[in-house]
Amino acid sequence: MNGYSGTMSSDKVRVGILSTAAIVGKVLPGLKHGMEVVGVASRDRQKAQDFCKEHDCGVGMLYDEMLERDDVDVLYIPLPTGLRNERIAQAISRGKHIYSEKPMGGTAAELAELTKLCEEKGLQWMDGTMWYHSIRTKEIEKKLRNGDLGQVLRVSASFTFMAPDEAWLQGGNGRTDKSREPMGCLGDQGWYPLSAILWAFGWIMPEKVMCTHVTMNKVDTIVHCAGTLWFPGNRSAVFDCGCTAPHRSQYEIICEKGTVRVDDLVGGQQRTGNFAAYEVPFVGSSEYVQGDVMGKDEVMRAEACDHVNLLVDDLANCIRAIKAGGKPDPDWPHRSLAVHKVMSAVFESAQKGGAAVEIVS
Amino acid sequence: MNGYSGTMSSDKVRVGILSTAAIVGKVLPGLKHGMEVVGVASRDRQKAQDFCKEHDCGVGMLYDEMLERDDVDVLYIPLPTGLRNERIAQAISRGKHIYSEKPMGGTAAELAELTKLCEEKGLQWMDGTMWYHSIRTKEIEKKLRNGDLGQVLRVSASFTFMAPDEAWLQGGNGRTDKSREPMGCLGDQGWYPLSAILWAFGWIMPEKVMCTHVTMNKVDTIVHCAGTLWFPGNRSAVFDCGCTAPHRSQYEIICEKGTVRVDDLVGGQQRTGNFAAYEVPFVGSSEYVQGDVMGKDEVMRAEACDHVNLLVDDLANCIRAIKAGGKPDPDWPHRSLAVHKVMSAVFESAQKGGAAVEIVS
Repeated sequence: MNGYSGTMSSDKVRVGILSTAAIVGKVLPGLKHGMEVVGVASRDRQKAQDFCKEHDCGVGMLYDEMLERDDVDVLYIPLPTGLRNERIAQAISRGKHIYSEKPMGGTAAELAELTKLCEEKGLQWMDGTMWYHSIRTKEIEKKLRNGDLGQVLRVSASFTFMAPDEAWLQGGNGRTDKSREPMGCLGDQGWYPLSAILWAFGWIMPEKVMCTHVTMNKVDTIVHCAGTLWFPGNRSAVFDCGCTAPHRSQYEIICEKGTVRVDDLVGGQQRTGNFAAYEVPFVGSSEYVQGDVMGKDEVMRAEACDHVNLLVDDLANCIRAIKAGGKPDPDWPHRSLAVHKVMSAVFESAQKGGAAVEIVS
Repeated sequence: MNGYSGTMSSDKVRVGILSTAAIVGKVLPGLKHGMEVVGVASRDRQKAQDFCKEHDCGVGMLYDEMLERDDVDVLYIPLPTGLRNERIAQAISRGKHIYSEKPMGGTAAELAELTKLCEEKGLQWMDGTMWYHSIRTKEIEKKLRNGDLGQVLRVSASFTFMAPDEAWLQGGNGRTDKSREPMGCLGDQGWYPLSAILWAFGWIMPEKVMCTHVTMNKVDTIVHCAGTLWFPGNRSAVFDCGCTAPHRSQYEIICEKGTVRVDDLVGGQQRTGNFAAYEVPFVGSSEYVQGDVMGKDEVMRAEACDHVNLLVDDLANCIRAIKAGGKPDPDWPHRSLAVHKVMSAVFESAQKGGAAVEIVS
């Protein structure tokens, strides 16, 4: 227990939502669970009001109105990456904590500036990588960090699924249209394996990365991407992502003394074919496989949980700690920046025809 | 049934063994099961005779004596790769069918010459890649080839285990001493993931390969190696191998309409930690996992089998067919040459500091 029960009115963290994007439907129950939802902002007041009425989540308003409200502690910002940073900068200047949907937008330098501004203003930054917050993830993290498994040697991570139809694949979705998501499926799906790799390596940065395989769609957007990462000490990682292959959401971590495998990295649906688990709140992520040095596997049980609820709880606790006089937790902005740096380098490699790109620390 | 019951004396295939290497202990029961073992040859007659007495496998003799025997159809040649090709060339010139242990020795051009000589003389060539011959492998092969799973998009394959001790790692074993195995653990363990990748892709050759990560031991021999392969149509494969990580023996094949995963590529021990299964005959390889396009897994059952028995049966059947007037099966020498070409290219990449190496068809 951290001392913040969340039941006292003074402990309430109040959140505003910038956008009526589809993902809000998934995140909203978590926001309601751990915070007080003040309302939703949109470019279109009526749209925001309709959304709030339909989802019972406070007051609909325009973006600028939301930014000016004194009764909003944190803004959840799932705007498209191309539009997001300008709003984030405004929110920081108005003293709001930031809960930014992933992937990050803009350059790594731009993101570094935003997270630095947050730190300077004593504001918490957190991105919407839900799987970091699961009980399973935290259990594995502990094992990786306490040395029981020895050094991490290699990580393999993937997030792929098959586009539902040709129109979707050829630009009909935000992920497959570079005007909406410049890194395409590398940005959208790639965020997961790349974040899993960096997390497994304890946030050590790779020395260089290479996009070894890339497939573009008819509107010149990445729809499939594979690559390799070089970590200090001849240690390696590989990833693949995109919407041109069957559904796989997985990582394998090879350590000196054993292995850890998860077959539902992103969500809690395991390998059941329940793809709809991505669209709705779920309770899961209750298993992983640990192998020993001789290759003997053991299925490990973790407490099932709702990733979104736990993410919102972690963020609310950070904000409560700051309200009580503490400082922002630097881990969360650090993670966002690290993944975005590596992902941007992979994107640069893809643009350079697969040339290796060094990561400058 | 192929019409060769193996019970008639005229159907007997007679095999001689060149070397008293440790692997003979594993292969011998299979040779006895499917052929008539004439004897074992060594540089040292006494050593050969002692071996034959101990293992009840015919007559001990010198290499040249074995090559001259008229009652030997096929020679099983598990000599170290540095010594093997000279003996193979002699055996071919004496009209013997060839059962060569893997990995192949010498250059790809040298191997192409040997397999061509076999073909010209109407002799069968087969290497000792046991897993090709399992009932499970043949079932999966059928699924991959008949189009049910669509095109193969990406393959990931690994064979690693941890060296038992520091002396073993630093050159104390044939795999870790380049004077005995020039490609070190890339040759020894790498054969498995690379053969699995080429097999999964239906023996299409990659356009280029890259050794992305390599670790050398104190005697300048590869003990760990990872890489990526480029196949036509933006299709990809990754592999890792070596003796510096926990035991993993696995492949994942991503096809357009589903996935196939095997967690005991090399042997039949599954992920039980029974590493000793590599040293003795085993019956296993009875499971694999097939996933559909939505990520739903199904555990598939195959008939358990002894890989070595089935390899020897396949080879004996080839030889019987040739004795009956047929021609050698070109698939087996083709496989040996393909894997050796790709492995040699990965080795070249390692020697060139990880530069991509193109494969010339």
